[in-house]
Amino acid sequence: MSTPRGPYAKTSAKRQKILEAALAAYEEAGSRSVSVRDIAQRVGMTDAGVLHHFGNREGLLTAVLEARDAEAVASFGDPIENPPAALEILARNAATPGLVKLFVDVAAAAAEPEHPAHDFFARRYERYRDGLAGVLAKTAASNAPAAAVDQSELDADWAARVLLAVTDGLQLQWLLKPDIDMAADLARLHTVLVDALRDRTQDTS
Amino acid sequence: MSTPRGPYAKTSAKRQKILEAALAAYEEAGSRSVSVRDIAQRVGMTDAGVLHHFGNREGLLTAVLEARDAEAVASFGDPIENPPAALEILARNAATPGLVKLFVDVAAAAAEPEHPAHDFFARRYERYRDGLAGVLAKTAASNAPAAAVDQSELDADWAARVLLAVTDGLQLQWLLKPDIDMAADLARLHTVLVDALRDRTQDTS
Repeated sequence: MSTPRGPYAKTSAKRQKILEAALAAYEEAGSRSVSVRDIAQRVGMTDAGVLHHFGNREGLLTAVLEARDAEAVASFGDPIENPPAALEILARNAATPGLVKLFVDVAAAAAEPEHPAHDFFARRYERYRDGLAGVLAKTAASNAPAAAVDQSELDADWAARVLLAVTDGLQLQWLLKPDIDMAADLARLHTVLVDALRDRTQDTS
Repeated sequence: MSTPRGPYAKTSAKRQKILEAALAAYEEAGSRSVSVRDIAQRVGMTDAGVLHHFGNREGLLTAVLEARDAEAVASFGDPIENPPAALEILARNAATPGLVKLFVDVAAAAAEPEHPAHDFFARRYERYRDGLAGVLAKTAASNAPAAAVDQSELDADWAARVLLAVTDGLQLQWLLKPDIDMAADLARLHTVLVDALRDRTQDTS
């Protein structure tokens, strides 16, 4: 057990308790919206007391999404080191529409450079694109001569952008049409993209 | 020229004038945000006067997105009847980040069943999915025996969901990283998916 590092430490015990309460609130909310008050009541604090730990409402919601990512990695493994984890996470997301809605809401708002989630999303996309591209390039280039590897890295960057984009875009469609099987759709695209990358690597070898 | 059909007609002249001003405001805004006041000033009205025509701010923004779709179809053709139009529209979007941001903002918020854009987005996705799937199924099944067509329709539904999802998801990434070439990424995926559908149709024939 780590010792709380005071009220300003990012991992202070109080902050952690608020984030756990917020995750639970969003998990139970389904398609209903969650207010700061809902979260504050769960931890016996005032709204202002809760927001004090995160600067403002946007800061709180950004921290909830960071905590959700950390929780997903703890439960399923890091999707970059273990790509099938992405499918398990997406399947699990289908049980928590409140958190999916929060994610797409904040992702859209984070385009503003001043938004507290701007850096979180920019870094998150960068990390997933780079990580996924690395895995895809390795898969596609196995057994290929070195000359083919440069091209396959470009291809892998494209495939990584596409896989990440489809993951986000399917969540938007699923929120409006919950019978879409996001994990199955993503898994199938992954197979098609890996096949396409392998074909190209062989063509250029 | 059509005659204005009074203040409650959806296509009233005043309403149309407000929508044109709003589109211009978002086009010129770049990454800055647009307020109802910005729009109202362009047409010499009060904020309340503008909102009166659309119920509320969300109703106005929904109508702006509908007008944007209509304008895109008028300029480039309907992407369902003429799929390359989707690429031209996406390339054009890269010049209007304000409208892309508005689109993803409202798409995320539209998950709420009570949101004025809920029906617009549900219908929009349905129409594009069905239309795209029809075009893809026809492309993939050309020269295939009738027995293969059922399967290829299922496949085409999947490919349509995926193309639509990637279009939305790439816009999210592009807002944070404007050097992504959305139209090129989408065009390349379209080629890969059509090839994959053709392969499957041939496998099952």
